[in-house]
Amino acid sequence: MACGGEPVLIKDGERILLMSEDGDEFITVAKSGKKFVTHLGSVEFEKIMGLDFGDFVETSKGEKLYILKPSIVEEILNLKRKTQIVYPKDLGYILLKLDVKPGDRVIDVGIGSGVVSFAMARIVGRKGKVYAYEKRKDFIEKAKENLKNWGVLEFVEIKCRDLSEGVDEREVDAFFLDVPKPWLYIDEVWEALKGGGRFGAVVPTTNQVQEMLSALGESHFKKIEVVENLFRFYKPIPQRLRPYDRMVAHTAYMIFAVKVHE
Amino acid sequence: MACGGEPVLIKDGERILLMSEDGDEFITVAKSGKKFVTHLGSVEFEKIMGLDFGDFVETSKGEKLYILKPSIVEEILNLKRKTQIVYPKDLGYILLKLDVKPGDRVIDVGIGSGVVSFAMARIVGRKGKVYAYEKRKDFIEKAKENLKNWGVLEFVEIKCRDLSEGVDEREVDAFFLDVPKPWLYIDEVWEALKGGGRFGAVVPTTNQVQEMLSALGESHFKKIEVVENLFRFYKPIPQRLRPYDRMVAHTAYMIFAVKVHE
Amino acid sequence: MACGGEPVLIKDGERILLMSEDGDEFITVAKSGKKFVTHLGSVEFEKIMGLDFGDFVETSKGEKLYILKPSIVEEILNLKRKTQIVYPKDLGYILLKLDVKPGDRVIDVGIGSGVVSFAMARIVGRKGKVYAYEKRKDFIEKAKENLKNWGVLEFVEIKCRDLSEGVDEREVDAFFLDVPKPWLYIDEVWEALKGGGRFGAVVPTTNQVQEMLSALGESHFKKIEVVENLFRFYKPIPQRLRPYDRMVAHTAYMIFAVKVHE
Amino acid sequence: MACGGEPVLIKDGERILLMSEDGDEFITVAKSGKKFVTHLGSVEFEKIMGLDFGDFVETSKGEKLYILKPSIVEEILNLKRKTQIVYPKDLGYILLKLDVKPGDRVIDVGIGSGVVSFAMARIVGRKGKVYAYEKRKDFIEKAKENLKNWGVLEFVEIKCRDLSEGVDEREVDAFFLDVPKPWLYIDEVWEALKGGGRFGAVVPTTNQVQEMLSALGESHFKKIEVVENLFRFYKPIPQRLRPYDRMVAHTAYMIFAVKVHE
Repeated sequence: MACGGEPVLIKDGERILLMSEDGDEFITVAKSGKKFVTHLGSVEFEKIMGLDFGDFVETSKGEKLYILKPSIVEEILNLKRKTQIVYPKDLGYILLKLDVKPGDRVIDVGIGSGVVSFAMARIVGRKGKVYAYEKRKDFIEKAKENLKNWGVLEFVEIKCRDLSEGVDEREVDAFFLDVPKPWLYIDEVWEALKGGGRFGAVVPTTNQVQEMLSALGESHFKKIEVVENLFRFYKPIPQRLRPYDRMVAHTAYMIFAVKVHE
Repeated sequence: MACGGEPVLIKDGERILLMSEDGDEFITVAKSGKKFVTHLGSVEFEKIMGLDFGDFVETSKGEKLYILKPSIVEEILNLKRKTQIVYPKDLGYILLKLDVKPGDRVIDVGIGSGVVSFAMARIVGRKGKVYAYEKRKDFIEKAKENLKNWGVLEFVEIKCRDLSEGVDEREVDAFFLDVPKPWLYIDEVWEALKGGGRFGAVVPTTNQVQEMLSALGESHFKKIEVVENLFRFYKPIPQRLRPYDRMVAHTAYMIFAVKVHE
Repeated sequence: MACGGEPVLIKDGERILLMSEDGDEFITVAKSGKKFVTHLGSVEFEKIMGLDFGDFVETSKGEKLYILKPSIVEEILNLKRKTQIVYPKDLGYILLKLDVKPGDRVIDVGIGSGVVSFAMARIVGRKGKVYAYEKRKDFIEKAKENLKNWGVLEFVEIKCRDLSEGVDEREVDAFFLDVPKPWLYIDEVWEALKGGGRFGAVVPTTNQVQEMLSALGESHFKKIEVVENLFRFYKPIPQRLRPYDRMVAHTAYMIFAVKVHE
Repeated sequence: MACGGEPVLIKDGERILLMSEDGDEFITVAKSGKKFVTHLGSVEFEKIMGLDFGDFVETSKGEKLYILKPSIVEEILNLKRKTQIVYPKDLGYILLKLDVKPGDRVIDVGIGSGVVSFAMARIVGRKGKVYAYEKRKDFIEKAKENLKNWGVLEFVEIKCRDLSEGVDEREVDAFFLDVPKPWLYIDEVWEALKGGGRFGAVVPTTNQVQEMLSALGESHFKKIEVVENLFRFYKPIPQRLRPYDRMVAHTAYMIFAVKVHE
């Protein structure tokens, strides 16, 4: 006999992703008594409640909308971005390299839209903590809203502060830095990390990479790694398999290092 | 006042990574009364115990060895591989695309060295479960040993079975397939997944991608995505920043899809 | 004393490229008594004649237009393309691999816009010949016009014929094939090439590469090579050096081989 | 009736490439009365003379060796390199971007092994000229020997001089620079080029690119382009089409610009 419970049906207040046959995606919240309106027609949320994820509804214009529980990748790619964000192609590798795991205490500076804090918080969970620093209040407000929507706000402690004033935490497992001049804060990072703690940063230009490497070379960090990646997507047509015509050429250079004592 | 506890000192039985100044890495277990022997000289484990991670010891030949807690990336790259493994460059993205999170019930077929099960298990934790299938007993033995070393064996249920006999679980959150002919098992995957559940597979050749796309095209899966990546590492020299001369050109094509009802 | 003649001044009937400060490019012919009109304003060709290449004129709107002699890359990229074309990123490598040199007799099928014939003709020169085959009359008309503009029409012999009817030439140095099903014509290619002659083809999909490799595997060709490339352009800003955000992900797979006798 | 002459048979003194079934390649000269010796066995050159290119001979050990006329790519890849060379993947694009054509007068600094001068000389031919500068006498000796073997020495004028002393030529069509600090010579390049003349340089590091862009930004050059490429080769197996495991990650950044008057 197959094991595994019953499907969890969609309830009032549930965060959902609606996907059209053409691949348009909309992330929203199912609200009793309201309806979802788009260029593909409208649909009453009542029609969605009680359905299973993976089911579809038809809009007033007869368009199919499949109902999914938004994944982290979908949440990131559907952000109305006002800040530079860390993309899934880099984020997955960053989480591995920083070795983020349940119970870890980690620092994320600056929080931006909250993408990295989201990904970290979901993993470190209740026994861990993400300490997120950000100097711009408007970013913090937006990040808080996002983290609340994503259900991880309780695992993130957000502080409005410029990194030049230092961080409060010590012996943290990992430190992620997404600021314009990360090389200015190498000492703060080293102070905050535990021995063997993992450091990561992203910068868009080669000049910034050079500055970072100079700063790291004078510090007590080892295993310095600089890496970039190219993700190439293919048209999913079995008889004519080939990459799409265009692709992302660059997001950021990633820099990693490990704190040691000397 | 800075917040954050005391460093956790290295104890008897601790799994450690020893790293030389030249970047040689050795993963071992600190055992009281024993010593670690390498071409860089030997070192008594007693000298290591009580130290902090990030500290170093000197070998009998005067070589410095830094002591780190092995990260998941280091564990993978230091595997004595007998099976094809999923590399960190792909693994991070796979975890994000499958949306693996605490409490999830996920399936990993075939287990190989246990790398994917390790990464999944660490995230799903005690409230979730990884169901790993593998038809080769020798692979299972090795994977069990690895998962035990990595501290996640309790979160993984391993079954010795060919996928053609089906899986026991239903309503799982994600299903990962790393077998030579994944297209043969699309129905089993669909049956096991919950509505909106996430499917991922890796295959090394374009012919296999074509077979997969044909099979997926006839199934109830949506959001079919085929992607590959190139990770390019840079020499960490600030005055002469440039990529290394050579790089990995190919590991696998990744294929993702989402289960829907029609 | 420096050696090297006087600049060659622009004459009536000269083919020129006009380039704005913003990088807009227009290829045209300087015609006495006419003027060049664009959204950047107009300019009398009389003002251009007698100038040196590299000089600029000002349009009626005060915009600077630099005058260049169009290079082959500029001619290709400024084509109003109705056919799939071979891009510079691939073309340079193809010419080298086919070892095209002065005096060579080479075949180009199908001619398309004439880009490959142009590049080949310019090199083989008066003592060589490009034999271009094309089954569509409208393509031939357009290619002829292009080749005439580019000044190489006399070096190209164009034949309106489907490749299934064979080619007339024997002992040719190189054979380039840009048709949807190149694997159907392997025998024709082999017949036409001299011993050691060089064969090249471009195809957009992996399925086509597979078909080609199957056909070549049963033929008397050696040194079979399949290659693709990615060209990544950088923003030319010294203080913030980084790639552009997006790039071409795919044009075609290139396949090369050498005819041998067995 | 098919048109095209008889095969040109191999003669005494002919430069040939011998290729084994396993893809080993040897470039040598067929010399009457001598024999070719390798680990695959030996073969008398007499047995080769009178054969057609594309034919094979058998060595004393029964190994097949196919006889080819070496192409430019084969000549480059079979160089015993003592200097950094420009690889085919970059060379083809450089020739197109510099718009090298019959009759052109072009400059190549420094000559290194002579690869770029070879490629340019073969195209510019008898009515053009390659002016090659090099400050190291040992490089010049080797380059001369190579250019003689390649049959283009008469089209190249080699001068032993440091570029800081300037070049003699004016109104040249193209200028290629492969020296460690190309930014020091921007003025010399500009002086030598004709209006609209094409400039290209290769440098291995991002720091050098930045220096070049700074120097070009203060000069009278336009159309500044920085580009790198990745060439990825596939295993030519139709049933299991996939890239080789590893590839070249980096050779050089290419920088191009056009001289204008301001």
